[in-house]
Amino acid sequence: MRVLVTNDDGIRAPGLMALRGALLPLGEVLAIAPEGPRSACGHAITLHKPLRLMPVDVPDGGRVFAINGFPADCVALGASEHLGGRPDIVVSGINVGPNLGVDMVYSGTVAAAREAAICGISSFAISIVAYDVLDFGPAAEFALELTRALCTYELPTGTYLNVNVPAVPRAEMKGVAFTRQSRIRYDNRIERRTDPRGGTYYWLTGDRIDRGSQPEADVEAVDGNRISVTPAHLDVTEEKLLAALRGWDLKWPA
Amino acid sequence: MRVLVTNDDGIRAPGLMALRGALLPLGEVLAIAPEGPRSACGHAITLHKPLRLMPVDVPDGGRVFAINGFPADCVALGASEHLGGRPDIVVSGINVGPNLGVDMVYSGTVAAAREAAICGISSFAISIVAYDVLDFGPAAEFALELTRALCTYELPTGTYLNVNVPAVPRAEMKGVAFTRQSRIRYDNRIERRTDPRGGTYYWLTGDRIDRGSQPEADVEAVDGNRISVTPAHLDVTEEKLLAALRGWDLKWPA
Repeated sequence: MRVLVTNDDGIRAPGLMALRGALLPLGEVLAIAPEGPRSACGHAITLHKPLRLMPVDVPDGGRVFAINGFPADCVALGASEHLGGRPDIVVSGINVGPNLGVDMVYSGTVAAAREAAICGISSFAISIVAYDVLDFGPAAEFALELTRALCTYELPTGTYLNVNVPAVPRAEMKGVAFTRQSRIRYDNRIERRTDPRGGTYYWLTGDRIDRGSQPEADVEAVDGNRISVTPAHLDVTEEKLLAALRGWDLKWPA
Repeated sequence: MRVLVTNDDGIRAPGLMALRGALLPLGEVLAIAPEGPRSACGHAITLHKPLRLMPVDVPDGGRVFAINGFPADCVALGASEHLGGRPDIVVSGINVGPNLGVDMVYSGTVAAAREAAICGISSFAISIVAYDVLDFGPAAEFALELTRALCTYELPTGTYLNVNVPAVPRAEMKGVAFTRQSRIRYDNRIERRTDPRGGTYYWLTGDRIDRGSQPEADVEAVDGNRISVTPAHLDVTEEKLLAALRGWDLKWPA
């Protein structure tokens, strides 16, 4: 079995190496990750400049590469014939920080899983709901279990999984929940500041806001100490609005 | 009425100025766009460095700014109190090049419309299905008409529109089609090359492949010389797979 692991926290992130280590018993594990952090890079890909692969030494002699691109690039390159051809499964993570609700839009971790789905490869993204992670153990173990499951069960074309693991000791975890993407958003505050030379600059920030509770939402699962597994698809067509649009009076050509 | 226009081709792109010019009759038009091209930047946002706004002079004295960020940043900043508060509508484009099917994932143009939807602002992305555009006229006119329509009809929360305009003379256009996101993909070829110093580098490339026809797909509309308007949503939960996952035998905790 051939697995490709990647992330958006970069090649030096301990979550990547924890993931790689957990999956090594399954067979050949190729790791390709950005040379530095690419948090919030979304589904960016590199079309307009050359990509370079930089081999990284690891004690077990395995195949690990840094790249001057984005997580989605890692999947495109990692699935190419130049690195031995298509993997059976792509796993992206282990991300430090949640990817719940609207986070899925901004996340490079999730983008890598989405890119795999575009390429027709089974995949999941996995994140820990904390910004200061000391123990990747439970998340790494679950990644192994889910990767094994993806050998047995097939993901439908154009779908992938988004996993969030609560940051609680193993003994406090209450199992796995299959969930919907929640409607959490951020309030998008922008701070205006002045630099030492008197120039104005802006920081994007914002606090999480929950827009009403939903049945079986990702955020409720992790708040309840359960591992959240959200199935996602590529097709974003809004069918109800499609029907409504037909009633619009659009004068064109005028 | 207040409109925010942006794009991913950058502040100097003629499509942005054509769009801005077309919408000026509607009221106040604020333009904020990346300082340079950001094609294929997906839904990247700038969280880890300061954003700077650079005023751009235009003959009519209007408010135009370049920013050192991504299209989604333009929406976040353009909707903030620092620039006068939330616009009524966000329009992103006019992009040179199609945003059909899977292009929606990679496109910064579409990401700007999606970011507006996240912020609760009506929005659409508009693209011309050609890479060498001489006449932005028909697309700009349609943008005006659709922006007017968005004053009359309300987009449901969490939705936005993706517009693709065929690159044919106005007389050959056959009206508007409300469409579904097609399943077109790219075959993701990676070219390995050698630089003048003997180093290896890679280019991402690929040809479009159609994965079977769909009723009312975006690509079929533009191939038939119709303007394609695809309604899209933010929620990517795959309900069928959610039901199937409950049958999976996931041994965790082991």
